[in-house]
This record gives sequence, structure tokens and C-alpha cells, in this order.
Amino acid sequence: MIDAANPLSWVPSANGHPDFPLHNLPLGVFSVAGQTPRGGVAIGEHILDLQVACAAGLFEGEAEAAARAASGDCLNAFFALGAPARRALRAALTGLLAEGSPARMHMEALGDALLPAMADCRLHLPARVGDYTDFYVGIHHANNVGKLFRPDNPLLPNYKHVPIGYHGRASTVCVSGTPVRRPLGQTLPPGQEAPSFGPSKRLDYELELGIWIGEGNAMGESIAIGEAGEHVAGYCLLNDWSARDLQAWEYQPLGPFLAKNFATTVSPWVVMPEALAPFRIAQPPRPAGDPQPLPYLLDAQDQAAGAFDIELEVLLQSAAMREQGLAPQRLALSNTRHMYWTVAQMVAHHSVGGCMLQPGDLFGSGTLSGPEPEQFGSLLESSFGGKQALTLSSGETRTFLEDGDEVILRARCRREGQPSIGFGECRGVLLPARSA
Amino acid sequence: MIDAANPLSWVPSANGHPDFPLHNLPLGVFSVAGQTPRGGVAIGEHILDLQVACAAGLFEGEAEAAARAASGDCLNAFFALGAPARRALRAALTGLLAEGSPARMHMEALGDALLPAMADCRLHLPARVGDYTDFYVGIHHANNVGKLFRPDNPLLPNYKHVPIGYHGRASTVCVSGTPVRRPLGQTLPPGQEAPSFGPSKRLDYELELGIWIGEGNAMGESIAIGEAGEHVAGYCLLNDWSARDLQAWEYQPLGPFLAKNFATTVSPWVVMPEALAPFRIAQPPRPAGDPQPLPYLLDAQDQAAGAFDIELEVLLQSAAMREQGLAPQRLALSNTRHMYWTVAQMVAHHSVGGCMLQPGDLFGSGTLSGPEPEQFGSLLESSFGGKQALTLSSGETRTFLEDGDEVILRARCRREGQPSIGFGECRGVLLPARSA
Repeated sequence: MIDAANPLSWVPSANGHPDFPLHNLPLGVFSVAGQTPRGGVAIGEHILDLQVACAAGLFEGEAEAAARAASGDCLNAFFALGAPARRALRAALTGLLAEGSPARMHMEALGDALLPAMADCRLHLPARVGDYTDFYVGIHHANNVGKLFRPDNPLLPNYKHVPIGYHGRASTVCVSGTPVRRPLGQTLPPGQEAPSFGPSKRLDYELELGIWIGEGNAMGESIAIGEAGEHVAGYCLLNDWSARDLQAWEYQPLGPFLAKNFATTVSPWVVMPEALAPFRIAQPPRPAGDPQPLPYLLDAQDQAAGAFDIELEVLLQSAAMREQGLAPQRLALSNTRHMYWTVAQMVAHHSVGGCMLQPGDLFGSGTLSGPEPEQFGSLLESSFGGKQALTLSSGETRTFLEDGDEVILRARCRREGQPSIGFGECRGVLLPARSA
Repeated sequence: MIDAANPLSWVPSANGHPDFPLHNLPLGVFSVAGQTPRGGVAIGEHILDLQVACAAGLFEGEAEAAARAASGDCLNAFFALGAPARRALRAALTGLLAEGSPARMHMEALGDALLPAMADCRLHLPARVGDYTDFYVGIHHANNVGKLFRPDNPLLPNYKHVPIGYHGRASTVCVSGTPVRRPLGQTLPPGQEAPSFGPSKRLDYELELGIWIGEGNAMGESIAIGEAGEHVAGYCLLNDWSARDLQAWEYQPLGPFLAKNFATTVSPWVVMPEALAPFRIAQPPRPAGDPQPLPYLLDAQDQAAGAFDIELEVLLQSAAMREQGLAPQRLALSNTRHMYWTVAQMVAHHSVGGCMLQPGDLFGSGTLSGPEPEQFGSLLESSFGGKQALTLSSGETRTFLEDGDEVILRARCRREGQPSIGFGECRGVLLPARSA
């Protein structure tokens, strides 16, 4: 008998899997040795190969069209089909992989060809990123960073009216596991009048939620807030690597540039909005006394849906920790509930002036810190601007990242009576700078 | 007999053509009614169709490979081949179209199929823009804009050390002739505490040089300044439409966003670096007393080459002027010599931290104003922050753009003993805002 709230799969490793039970079913792009990259679905310790599944005739109708669009070497064509096609594919996948699936014997007979072990697969960037936009909706982060510069007045006057964002670099968005090289650049060392050139000395991570855009809008048109949710294809984790010393010197007056454009790492799985739907938390959208959003940012259904309740974790493993066999150490545990603006507000704002969004565009939420130090999503915050070092299990200390450090982001959703789901990991190890 | 300094073409309209004589030969993407877009070369009043030219066997060796790469619906594959392939194609085209060309009879026999009239063609965006970056190298513009905010100290301390730039929006880069819709957005009206929402009331153009990137670099690597020139595929005109009132309210702390991302217009022809080579002007790279660039931005050959000497013009034709048959009116005549940083410095800086550049990436120079009011490349400057209106030939006045205004950018290179060349036009008419 199927428990509707906790359905089981005939893929044994899916049942009780912390990240990829039957309820999750995130999409990604993977390859096994000797084969071309193709779309797949995470289920337990396996990936369902959408090319093999299509060839085996497992789908029909709208779900088949969606599965075919998702079976290529990137998910852009699938994202372009929009939310109804995604829901059709999700429903079909849920049926195929559920315990009582009529297709079970057929699928089991296909064996590893249909369901290779994830451990044998390489995961790729799930979509070609057209444009990448980084927002700044983590209000505690904005407060913490603002305090370093303006102790009495940390939030700028526009913060509670405008979902602040800026354009990031699409070409260097890379998938989890890609090593990241410490950037060279200009900095103005304290007390000096002329800048120096060399490797960044204040290299940092930023813990963010990534948002993949589905169906877009034409140039000159916009996406109304009431429809914004239908334009989101899914979610991932995002590490917005940041060189704080480069940033401080370069960012006036046009914003961050080399401080951010050397790398942005995303987790490989695209978690569908439908999988996250049960994990919302009713909270007042904004504290009493805060200004009401302008009408183009206000939608009753969006406000009523509540914030996402997704635990976000940053861990660090230094080279010495790896050598000593020490596990990655948690540096922070935060939550998406600290977003001051909803994803629908971000989509509506981004497009309201006529900016064209396209399938495969990527948004970052901005750093999602909580109010407490153990919830801070960047080292700039955790080290209080580099003034207070963290101690690692190896006995090493950190204000900012050292070469060889691996930064690992994780996300998990838990709720009473629901199977928990996770995002998989977003990892990146820091390589030394090129010689200057 | 061929005059080496002023070679003639057997295409009559090329000889003495103000924009497209034999010396220029810019590449673009065009279509004639009923045919797919393809690469072509501007020559006088005609376009040489590279698909037809390839099919007719007009090229051989490296030039043929380059022509084939440039004959598709975008020039990215051609840009990726790099500078030697471009020079081979240019040499072959020069030979084919010169007065004494052995291929002349063969080419003339192909008639309109090989050389359709430009007036019968539609011009397209020449490349798919991967990432678009806008710089800020026009020092007079930086000074003029800075003065509006900080009269005593207009230039920020980093300006003479860092080629300041920021990431723009690639999805809304559009080709000349594309109408542009006035954006809606938030502004903070003077004297108010809460923002309003509606159409921008301070819509502006920015007169910029566009730079198309050719061969790129791998993520984590960089392009040394000595090699930067070889990574530039060509040049165009660029209008960085700007909503000043949106910009003033949104730009702190992360830079311009909705104020710029609704549209960026480029001219359709990619003018090759080789065509611009004669139009350089020896000028001290920077005023005495200015700081020397850091070594990664300093190259003796780059400094010795001198600034580009390209006249840049902005014209405006209002709806009333069109109705009255009044010609577009010049609002400014500036020059690329007002760039504080060279293009090689922009390329070297952009990539020095490991940011990957790719073929078809686009740079804007930033507004290139001269020191005098009649050289100002934006209305923000020409109207002194909206305080002093310009009078048009129709009797109308302007501080910022009105609906129906068409903004036209032109560029021309002149030098004694050289045929002058031009860039063609970068035009865009402003449509009224959507209803809010």
C-alpha cells in the first residue's frame, strides 16, 4: 500500500535516502565513461538515464516530449517548455519509479543502462547559462556587511524597496567539483596610496540559493509577479566565490567585477519547485513597520505561500584535514527563510523594465546568513571582517580561505511527516594563484 | 595601376564610399527576403554574400576556412579562429574586390546573388553575445558624471589605476534598428522618502565604442597585455541606453541593473582591427603626473601604437522632426582618443583574475565624451544633469529623451592620404513605456 505522504520506490536506495528519495527527483546532466553527456534524474544512489528511458518507450504524451527535451547535453530546451511540461514529466517519473509501478519489470530488465550508479557518473553543468544575475536578498548578510562600513546605518535606503541585484559573469559558472584558482588582482593595502598587484589575500565563499529560469519573456515585456513562479525551472546551491580585497578597491562606482567573475560554483541537480512545495514556512513576510512592497512586487498568493524552509550548510576541509583524515567541518548552518524578498519578487523585478529572461538564466539569491554568528554565510561575516579567526579541527585557523581548502555547500529540507530531501553537494577546492 | 594607399574596387559604389570603401571590408550577418541569415562583407552599396562566394570557389586555403566559418548565421565560429584567419580572409577579400582582380568576370557573372544591394538586406546581430561587459574608460565622462555628485573630487581614487568595468546584460544586446521600449521602474522623486513606480523620466543614450572578442582564454588563465590585441575580433558602435532616475535609486551598493539592462544597441558591421590600423594618433598615453599603470597593464608596443582616432557622432531625430522632414540633428561629436585605457588594457584587466573570455563576448568602452559640451556623449552631461535644455531644429527642447526620438550613432576615420572609412549607423527609436 502506498503512503501518499511518504511514497516508496522500487529502487531500494531511494527509500530513506537523505537527498534523493522518490519525492525529490531532481534533473541534471551526467555522463558515464565513454558516453556523451545526457539528461538524467537522481533517484537514491542511481541516475535514471532519460535517453535510455525515452528509447525504451517509458513515456508518452507531454511527458515524453518533456523527457526528450531533457535528454540532451543541457536542460535549456526542457526549461523552455515551461512548468506544465515539467509537472507532466514529474508525474510520469513518480509513477515509473514508485513501488507499484507497472513498468518496474521492464525497467529492472534494463539494469545499469537505465539506472547507472551515481558513483560511476560524472555530473555536468545542467544548463548553458545565458545570463547570470546575483541578488542581495539575504537581509542579515546585507546588515552584517553594511555594519563593517557603516556601523550606525548598515542598510542603504533602497534595500527594503528594491530587490537589489547586479549582473554576474555567465562564462565562469561551473559545476560542483571544478577546482577554482585563486585570482590575481589589484588591491589597496591598508595605509598605502597606490595599489599592489598579486594573489587575493581575502578569498571568501558566499552561501547562496541558485534559481534556474524556465520559460522567459520577450524583450520589452515583463513577467507579472502572479506568474513569476511559473517561470522558475528549479533550484540549486550556489557558491559566489569572492575576493574581498579586490572588491574593496574596485567596486566604486559600478559594483563588483574581478572580485567575483573568476568563478561561481553550482550544485549539479535542479530541484523542482514541486519537490520544494511542502517545505514552506508561514512567517510574516516582513517585520512590522517595514515598508509595503510596491504593487508590482506584491502578490497575495506569493505572500501567503511563505518562505522556503531549506537548511543551508557550509563546510570546510583544509588540505591538512584531508591528510589527517578529518571530516569536513561545519562553518555555518543557515536557512532560506532569511530571504527578505521572494523568488517571485526577484523574477518580477528583474523583468519589469523589459529585460529579457531566457531559459537557462541563473539567479543567485545573495548570501543567506542568519542573525547569529554560527549562521553567517561568508567568512567576511564569520571572521568579523578578518578580525576574529575560526579554529578548525586540525588546529589551523582561518579568517579567509587558504590554498587547498575545499568549500562544501549542502542543503536539506525536513518537515514532520514528510521524507526529507536534499540538494546534493556544491564543492570546490581552491588552487594556488598562477604566478603573478 | 593600383594606388597602394588608395586602392580602387571594381565595385563602383565602393570607390569614395564614406563608410565602406575597399579598405574597410567589415563583416556582418544579413538576410535578403526569403533567405536565411548568413555572413557577408560590406563593400560600397553592396554586401558580398559569403555563402555564395564559398560555393563559387572564390577562396582557398586558410581564407576559405575563415570564409566558411563566417558564412553562418552568426560570426562566433569565425571569431574563434583568431587573428591569423581573419587576416587571411581580409587579404583574400581585398584581392577579389580590387580593380585588377582576376576573379572579377566570374564574380560579376554571379550578379545580385553574390553582391545584393545593401538596401535590399536586413542586418542582424553579428554574433551571439556570450557575456557583455561595459567599461568606463571615457575619462571626461567619468569626470563630468562625478562632478554632478562630487564637485571637488569627481574622479574616484581607483580610476587611474583600474580600468573600471561591470557586467552588463547580454540578452538585450540588439542590432541597430531594433525599437527600444522606455523602461518602467522605481525612482525616488526629489524630496520624497518612498519610491514611486512608473516610466523612466530621465532616459538617456551613451555614445560608446563596442569591442567584439575573438579567441578567448580558459577559465583560470589570462591574456597577457602583449597578446591582448590578437584577441580582439573587431569594433562597432554601441548605445548603452540608460535610465538615469532608476540608476540613481538602485545603484548602491552593487552598480547599475534595471537602469541599463532593458536594451543595448550595436551597429551591425564588425570593423576589423586591420582596417583601423592606419587611424591611430600619437598622444601621450596619459597626462604627466598621472600614475603609471601596474606592469600587467603596461606594454611598450601598446603604448607606442597610440590612441584610435575615430570620430564619434550622436544625432537625434524626434517624431516631430521626422514629420516636418527635418534631418537628424547632431548633438555631439566626440572621438575615441578620449579613452583613458587602451583596448588591450581592458582585455588584460578583464582576464587577469582568471575570468574566461569567449568568442562573441562584447565590451563597451563606456561613454566617450570630450572635454567640451559639444563633445559630451550623453544627455546627462549635455544637459548638465537635466538643468539645461538643448534646442532642436524643430523648436522642441530636450533634457532627456522623449518617446519617438530616434538616436543615431555614427563613426568615421579620416586621415590625410587615406580613404576614410566608417562604421555604418547604430540607430534606435524610443517607444513609449508599457502601461504600468
